[in-house]
Amino acid sequence: MGEKLVKLPATEVDMTAAKYTPQRVQAPHLTGFWLKLFVMLIEAPIIGSMILILLKNKNRITEILKNTMIPEAPMFIPEFPPKESEPDIFCLEEDGKPEERVELALQCLPDYNPGCIWITDPTAPFRYWKIRDYAYAYKSKLTTPSQVAEHFISAIEESNNKNPLAPLLISYDPDEVKRQADASTQRFKEGSELSILDGIFIAVKDDIDCYPYPSKGGTTWFHEFRQVKNDAVCVSRLRNCGAVLVGKTNMHELALGTTGNNANFGTTRNPHAPDRYTGGSSSGSAAIVACGLCSAALGTDGGGSVRIPSSLCGVVGLKTTYGRTDMKGLLYHSGTVAIVGPITATVEDSILVYAAILGSSPAERVSLKPALPCLPNLSSYENWCSTGSLRLGKYTEWFNDVFSTEISDKCENILNQLSEKHGCKTIEIVIPELHEMFIAHVVSIGSEALSQLNPDLEDGKLARLTYDSRINLALFRTYSASDYIAAQCLRRRLMHFYMEIFKKVDIIVTPTTAMTAPIISPTALTVGETNMRVSGSLMRFVLAGNLLGFPAISVPVGYDKQGLPIGMQLIGRPWCEASILRLAAAIEETCAGPKKKPVQFYDILKGNLM
Amino acid sequence: MGEKLVKLPATEVDMTAAKYTPQRVQAPHLTGFWLKLFVMLIEAPIIGSMILILLKNKNRITEILKNTMIPEAPMFIPEFPPKESEPDIFCLEEDGKPEERVELALQCLPDYNPGCIWITDPTAPFRYWKIRDYAYAYKSKLTTPSQVAEHFISAIEESNNKNPLAPLLISYDPDEVKRQADASTQRFKEGSELSILDGIFIAVKDDIDCYPYPSKGGTTWFHEFRQVKNDAVCVSRLRNCGAVLVGKTNMHELALGTTGNNANFGTTRNPHAPDRYTGGSSSGSAAIVACGLCSAALGTDGGGSVRIPSSLCGVVGLKTTYGRTDMKGLLYHSGTVAIVGPITATVEDSILVYAAILGSSPAERVSLKPALPCLPNLSSYENWCSTGSLRLGKYTEWFNDVFSTEISDKCENILNQLSEKHGCKTIEIVIPELHEMFIAHVVSIGSEALSQLNPDLEDGKLARLTYDSRINLALFRTYSASDYIAAQCLRRRLMHFYMEIFKKVDIIVTPTTAMTAPIISPTALTVGETNMRVSGSLMRFVLAGNLLGFPAISVPVGYDKQGLPIGMQLIGRPWCEASILRLAAAIEETCAGPKKKPVQFYDILKGNLM
Repeated sequence: MGEKLVKLPATEVDMTAAKYTPQRVQAPHLTGFWLKLFVMLIEAPIIGSMILILLKNKNRITEILKNTMIPEAPMFIPEFPPKESEPDIFCLEEDGKPEERVELALQCLPDYNPGCIWITDPTAPFRYWKIRDYAYAYKSKLTTPSQVAEHFISAIEESNNKNPLAPLLISYDPDEVKRQADASTQRFKEGSELSILDGIFIAVKDDIDCYPYPSKGGTTWFHEFRQVKNDAVCVSRLRNCGAVLVGKTNMHELALGTTGNNANFGTTRNPHAPDRYTGGSSSGSAAIVACGLCSAALGTDGGGSVRIPSSLCGVVGLKTTYGRTDMKGLLYHSGTVAIVGPITATVEDSILVYAAILGSSPAERVSLKPALPCLPNLSSYENWCSTGSLRLGKYTEWFNDVFSTEISDKCENILNQLSEKHGCKTIEIVIPELHEMFIAHVVSIGSEALSQLNPDLEDGKLARLTYDSRINLALFRTYSASDYIAAQCLRRRLMHFYMEIFKKVDIIVTPTTAMTAPIISPTALTVGETNMRVSGSLMRFVLAGNLLGFPAISVPVGYDKQGLPIGMQLIGRPWCEASILRLAAAIEETCAGPKKKPVQFYDILKGNLM
Repeated sequence: MGEKLVKLPATEVDMTAAKYTPQRVQAPHLTGFWLKLFVMLIEAPIIGSMILILLKNKNRITEILKNTMIPEAPMFIPEFPPKESEPDIFCLEEDGKPEERVELALQCLPDYNPGCIWITDPTAPFRYWKIRDYAYAYKSKLTTPSQVAEHFISAIEESNNKNPLAPLLISYDPDEVKRQADASTQRFKEGSELSILDGIFIAVKDDIDCYPYPSKGGTTWFHEFRQVKNDAVCVSRLRNCGAVLVGKTNMHELALGTTGNNANFGTTRNPHAPDRYTGGSSSGSAAIVACGLCSAALGTDGGGSVRIPSSLCGVVGLKTTYGRTDMKGLLYHSGTVAIVGPITATVEDSILVYAAILGSSPAERVSLKPALPCLPNLSSYENWCSTGSLRLGKYTEWFNDVFSTEISDKCENILNQLSEKHGCKTIEIVIPELHEMFIAHVVSIGSEALSQLNPDLEDGKLARLTYDSRINLALFRTYSASDYIAAQCLRRRLMHFYMEIFKKVDIIVTPTTAMTAPIISPTALTVGETNMRVSGSLMRFVLAGNLLGFPAISVPVGYDKQGLPIGMQLIGRPWCEASILRLAAAIEETCAGPKKKPVQFYDILKGNLM
């Protein structure tokens, strides 16, 4: 009698007394033969169930979801209190035209200085071409979108000829790129360009519909059952702005992993270290931006899938507040954790693309009542300095729970600089029940993915997926309806804890990932791999953004000794994208050291293939 | 390829083309030895899973939830459009004091005429004493709550001495009743009565906390693990009004059935036919009102559990809009389908008790944004006649899908009278996907029940439940998280269909149940029974109220040839309790024939035990 566990109501928990316990996912690291054998076993009727029960017990999933009395009612979608006010912002109109929002976003930016755009000074530190650089070059007739398209097409050809295959794009039609670029060139000729995004090369993750390309979701066959007839809403907004949509980027199959491994098409390589992963699941999106071929790419982020590859590839990844973007036309269009977000080389480009794609769906507006989207006013130095009012929350034990102190030291260093230069205050916080967050998240994202995939997985189609996906799906199938509901009760608890923290701080700061880009083992290229230790390290800091719907951004802050990028994550209050964008811009402008040019970099504006 | 089923988006479905297919749940009818054997089998590891898979396939649960592409996003809790205006209403204040709301409710009622309260005219048609009859008798010093308590206590004693046991109350303390009644008597003596509910005898279903009684939920042991320290919010509101809370009513174990069978304490008998079921799960609550011992009882309704026993026992049962009542202190306090609602002998008593108990919880207010609760203004005959503006929707094929045409004929007859006397228009409607509604509902309620029960079902405690419950729980355990999510997608579809219908009609009318009170087979008394044919018939018409959260009321409209009560159900627009209460009052006052006195009836106001 009385063996059941009972949680105190969240409101009665003494948060300061919470103890940090490093959370390590208990699962085998498998590749090659052992991976195949393991999949055979867990897909077998009885032994399979037993292994999965064991895995769930080992990771306390059963204990927490089934044997524990959680006093909170379920919170099925993130419920936010009214938006807190943010200083010095521009408000945008969700229902307005994307090209008008982009124009307003331009007013938020500091004056543009074309500076060194065409000067080749070998001693100048490396920097990515920004969207405004392209726009300047087009307007000044230094080049045209059509010329850039030529460079782009030859670069993609080169990249596609690699052996083993490691494609950036898995659906791509050079004629389609040329057609769009020529139309943009024509508009520039006529002075009728649609927005600052006109002629800007943007790639779209393969789980987002972009007509006329198929949406395979990184599989070899999923598109056979789901025809693409239209652009996803976010893509059509970019098209309305004149963007050149270059094709569909490679991704971790069905977005069910965070390394970016893809044995179907080949694994996209990290532009900073081609023997390493890009991170995922938006692997191709992060890589195509990092290697200079696109100014921006769209990714999806249900468990860090925008922020993780952005961090590992040294670019900027924005996860917007849940409900800020319209998910119509996405593979997972109706979950409660995922959003679509931009990956760009710079914070200012994030602002421009975010302004174009935002706008929630009518259904989400009913339940979420979103606050007006806002951008930070960064148009003068005084505006940067207003970050001084920001209080940054840091949970030191968690913050330091990384593979190498290089990561935490670099992020710590940024906090010190923000304090010195901008007077930001770092405040120590404690976040209870992080393992519960992991469980609530994996059950939510897994169950929601499965509910959308189920109708297409009948008749042995499961066997056409990679081993890695099959392990995940086998696990997701064990989640019961009552597990799912219990996970939603945890969501309400965790929301309470975080909202208590957000009474004291404006932004929570963490490293984006607990490790830099992991090595790809050779067998993983052909049969894939499962490595929960790596997944856990990549996902350690990202989950609140998904389970609780908060906006978050990963911004590059430097490199480790091996030259691999380190990202820092800023997690904001619900709907407060402006605050995290402002701080990200401050970090980018004043704190980060010079950029290292990726090993794989294509200067497509100039046509230099490097 | 392409074997998966794809549903058209709900907005593209031609609703008029929907075909009615009588929905029959496929499951064996079992009692005695066969029931025990079946439970043994389905709880066995492998054969159990196989049987359950078969059952789920037979009822198309797997086909609809797993193999069908449902285009809608999940709707986890009922989402309502803004409340439509209702004519001639009184608005109440959710945050106000219950005793003040009850006073306002009194103003909605026609003038009180004490009439025949103490005259014994054997030729006068039977009628129940109303709350205002008690209040009049107390105020006129014709009797006191203490005297009524004496009558009540001896009646309960008598009823408890039956063999086999068939208790109305399963937790009950005569001293506690006396104490509350004496306090009320004292208040009447001092002229300080708290409200019209002062001294009114009200019973509370055993899944609602009512201090100092345990909450067993109809089990023999559940209270060992859940201590009751306070009244549930709805109970404390009644207590504030001066009600005498007489104890905890018998119920179908854990509310997991609709007959009211309870092998733990004995099955409460239908006051109109003691060899028959009361219906459930709020069996004791409906029976204690029907047999005259209480003016009102609280029930809970997650799948018709207030309306079904009210219909079978010939009393009024109100299911309020989801989110209208506060579920704090209930066994199932955080589901998405259940509410707490009053069971009373008359519509006017429903209005008074509803006014006392209403008021949603703060958490529900965040997500549901409830409209102000309203009551119909019934204070003059002209007000009754304003029902003339009501458009009543009838899906004839469904309406007529009953065990005996006596049921549909009686209800049809009421519609004709409403048309003649009040000018109500009956409009033919079609409701698509009723089998989908059944599946979405059973998966929702089952999963939500399980998630709350799970922590208490470990260590062989399951074996301490009745066989009937164990079958249900075994089935509920097979629901996967993705089944649950798919069920929520169906919820959004069905909400669309119903809201389309509510553009054309104000109220949907049906029989409450497709059968009158079923016979109790003798073996069912000791080991229980499972009879999905009966359950299906009892639940056929009630599910929209739960899955979609609409308000609904069951009002008695007469008797079948065997003298068993027939109930008619009115389903209203979200938040529009006033409209259904108005129509229910009109049905009660002008259309229904004279009341038949139940076989088991206690005239506790006069002390006549019959």
